Amino acid sequence: MSSIDPKHVRIFDTTLRDGEQSPGISLNTAEKLEIAHQLARLGVDVIEAGFPIASPGDFEAVQAIAREVQGPIIAGLARAQAPDVESAARAVRDAANPRIHTFISTSDIHIVHQFRSTREDVLAQARAAVAHAKSFVDDVEFSPMDATRAELEYTAEVVAAAIEEGATTINVPDTVGYTVPDEYTAFLEGLYRLAPSLHDVILSVHCHDDLGLAVANSYAGLVAGARQVECAVNGIGERAGNCSLEEIVMLLRTRGEISGLHTTAVTTEIARTSRLVSRLTGYVVQPNKAIVGRNAFAHESGIHQDGVIKERTTYEIMDATSVGLDANSLVLGKHSGRAALKQALAELGFAVDGAVLNTAFKRFKDIADKKKTVTAMDLEALVTDELRDELASYTLEAFTVQAGSGREPHATVTVMLPDGTTAAGEFSGDGPIDSVFQAINVATGLDAQLREFRVDAVTGGQDALGETSVVLECDGQSASGQGVATDIIEAAGRAYVRALSNAVRKVQAAGELVDLAANEPIATP
Amino acid sequence: MSSIDPKHVRIFDTTLRDGEQSPGISLNTAEKLEIAHQLARLGVDVIEAGFPIASPGDFEAVQAIAREVQGPIIAGLARAQAPDVESAARAVRDAANPRIHTFISTSDIHIVHQFRSTREDVLAQARAAVAHAKSFVDDVEFSPMDATRAELEYTAEVVAAAIEEGATTINVPDTVGYTVPDEYTAFLEGLYRLAPSLHDVILSVHCHDDLGLAVANSYAGLVAGARQVECAVNGIGERAGNCSLEEIVMLLRTRGEISGLHTTAVTTEIARTSRLVSRLTGYVVQPNKAIVGRNAFAHESGIHQDGVIKERTTYEIMDATSVGLDANSLVLGKHSGRAALKQALAELGFAVDGAVLNTAFKRFKDIADKKKTVTAMDLEALVTDELRDELASYTLEAFTVQAGSGREPHATVTVMLPDGTTAAGEFSGDGPIDSVFQAINVATGLDAQLREFRVDAVTGGQDALGETSVVLECDGQSASGQGVATDIIEAAGRAYVRALSNAVRKVQAAGELVDLAANEPIATP
Repeated sequence: MSSIDPKHVRIFDTTLRDGEQSPGISLNTAEKLEIAHQLARLGVDVIEAGFPIASPGDFEAVQAIAREVQGPIIAGLARAQAPDVESAARAVRDAANPRIHTFISTSDIHIVHQFRSTREDVLAQARAAVAHAKSFVDDVEFSPMDATRAELEYTAEVVAAAIEEGATTINVPDTVGYTVPDEYTAFLEGLYRLAPSLHDVILSVHCHDDLGLAVANSYAGLVAGARQVECAVNGIGERAGNCSLEEIVMLLRTRGEISGLHTTAVTTEIARTSRLVSRLTGYVVQPNKAIVGRNAFAHESGIHQDGVIKERTTYEIMDATSVGLDANSLVLGKHSGRAALKQALAELGFAVDGAVLNTAFKRFKDIADKKKTVTAMDLEALVTDELRDELASYTLEAFTVQAGSGREPHATVTVMLPDGTTAAGEFSGDGPIDSVFQAINVATGLDAQLREFRVDAVTGGQDALGETSVVLECDGQSASGQGVATDIIEAAGRAYVRALSNAVRKVQAAGELVDLAANEPIATP
Repeated sequence: MSSIDPKHVRIFDTTLRDGEQSPGISLNTAEKLEIAHQLARLGVDVIEAGFPIASPGDFEAVQAIAREVQGPIIAGLARAQAPDVESAARAVRDAANPRIHTFISTSDIHIVHQFRSTREDVLAQARAAVAHAKSFVDDVEFSPMDATRAELEYTAEVVAAAIEEGATTINVPDTVGYTVPDEYTAFLEGLYRLAPSLHDVILSVHCHDDLGLAVANSYAGLVAGARQVECAVNGIGERAGNCSLEEIVMLLRTRGEISGLHTTAVTTEIARTSRLVSRLTGYVVQPNKAIVGRNAFAHESGIHQDGVIKERTTYEIMDATSVGLDANSLVLGKHSGRAALKQALAELGFAVDGAVLNTAFKRFKDIADKKKTVTAMDLEALVTDELRDELASYTLEAFTVQAGSGREPHATVTVMLPDGTTAAGEFSGDGPIDSVFQAINVATGLDAQLREFRVDAVTGGQDALGETSVVLECDGQSASGQGVATDIIEAAGRAYVRALSNAVRKVQAAGELVDLAANEPIATP
């Protein structure tokens, strides 16, 4: 497959697949769709929307994204097995540009210990899976999992076979985040030499960050000839995560003169995409994270500030507006009307109308009564918060809390249950928020255990919206929930009932799970 | 300076200098000492303890660390100016192994726009500063700031002059995080070629992470011949921060067979050092951060878990215990006595006795009454929390809060003021925590504005300790404070009064500031 522009690097976003596999993340279909729409606005070339055979929820989300999201290629992941490939094919079928991404390990450590298989069987499986995928779609990607710890010669043989069967993209994963730039470059050059047909397809890189080298390894791979990079927003993913989308995109943009490589990502959408993913996954971005951290463009020491004022390039190699920071000065007040809200939301890319607009307007008015001004970031948080309610089976109707030094904190709550009835609960716990959580357990009759709890302010200032994130465990399922309010206790309560709703949904889904082939656990690159 | 072991890489930790320059971080001397002692336990070779001329507080902290912390070389930073060098010399004088680290930019972009100087003047300044430093200490490090954007030939000339004047370490900073591995390697090779005397001293690397390449660039520099790496715990530092200490150390350890390079860092102290720095700086570590993130060693997808059980190496390239995770199963209960607490604290490296032990025991008993078990991580948080009180001029004595849906939150507080008297305040705000903060403003008569607010649970579980972090602005000074308690509102109140104490201290210090040479802003690599 020859590329029209030989220097164009394709951005393959796996936030919704590898990213969503991070512990504690549990996005529902509405949330995945919201992220996918934002990824389309960001201009990524490929969205890996999920792993359709993994669960009915995954299938549904991939299918919904394939049907609704315009622009990027929509990919579904599949092990090198017929049922996986067929499930992926059904899930992506309705996309304008569907892709099936199938994979199998070529490292002996995986073949022997994980799959208890042989090199011959793996080669045959790879060949069959690519051929099978090719019978459904033209666009087939193949990954030799754990390639960087595999024998070069054998991996080249499997890659050549995959290309022979019609693979149009070959992805070389550093599954365990083990390689270093020079070694990865040498491996990819070896593959080009031993499997010359690799020159006829797109080479792709997929690097994990276990040793802090995901971006550097990906960059080395691109310089060595790859023209697709697999990455995730905020660098989320298994363990230490994947190559961070924003870092590789801004690296190629800032130092493009070295390699001549470029992407077609809309960099001004980066900051907003980062906030959306952080909010919906509950995964915080550390202040010193490159590109999207709160301080990535902040200067503390005197000379740096002075230098920046004198001449921007003395201490800044990128302009904060190029990633969409400070770009938006949109502000609403308590007297802003429905039309102003609708227009502001439209500018943010949220097309709302009817009942959704009414709900959003009601929440907006509540907040505007308490805050002097409502900013674009507040609106983003509110709209994202509303998304959470669509599938919530429990709702926090009302609560009271008393707390203080020298007295036991006490909380009462009223919760709407899935059947529409309400139930009350009360509790005296270790602290006011603990008391609310326990009172919710009493009201719902569920025995959930809190695992993690976090609060952030959405924007600065005394009247900032509080954004809380809860991870709990209920009936063996771990689930997360987020809530937004000016009152931190209310935000915590909202987060907790949503996490409960998600946990209950997962418990029900686990009961309905299709019987996966031989009940094997599920592999990913 | 010839090294005894030619493959030994020196770890130069700049957490307390470049790291402490991050926006919102304001460590007092007790906190800096605590971190420095932990860095010594971690086995770093050099601690850059601060920038003595920057403020009286910086000077005091560097001096205290030089006097108290045994093991590592203690370095103080100094611009290439006599007063800076003299201040650094006085501050590190009492260390067993003192170092002065002086620097000046060699890039035209800095020389022209920042310093409004010339190449000739900069060369002369560098020469004079190194010679001046050499008159105080044997161990002198010189950095040509912004070297990666400077002309190679000119930088080599300045480096050769610094070596001629007695510099024993030459550090090559990528001050703005602009370079890429191959380019950095070529630059360092060029320096070796043009300034052959570089072979007689230690070459050092100092890389920023603006494009996500700090670790990769540092590694490339080490492979090219550097034997010192400047790094910070959790990768904190200006903007996107510095090379992350834990990542470069574990990279060298995990892939040592490639380069033969190694450090003498005690890797099992990594997790604890990371927690301490995160807690005292208020800088959160994202869950997907390599090595020290909550999920760095966690596996979500089925096959990964299955693979890890079958054969650890299938998906893990490092053992979690090698960085000190899960190494400690120490647990105390409500019936544990003073001796057990003292011993547990000693195991954690905290030597406490007398009044400090009494205070710690009282806090421990309060917590043990509320929690079933008190873990090593809880103890760490409590002891770190106690450190905060030594310099606090305001103390939260008591508070009450009422909140609920459909009513205005209301808080009352009693605060002990710096003069030992108490004052009361009350307020009805947007939320319970906002009300407490505003009531504290009323009680203290200070007009502080909240800038950031965050809550984390120290450990999992319903009865986890809440750890809050506050950044506020008061009289033009921004300061942070942290608090720990099972009651989140109490923790928030503690954090707020400490941030107030820190802000007031900074306001006072700003009034006493020595007049820096020509009132120049302060430069750092």
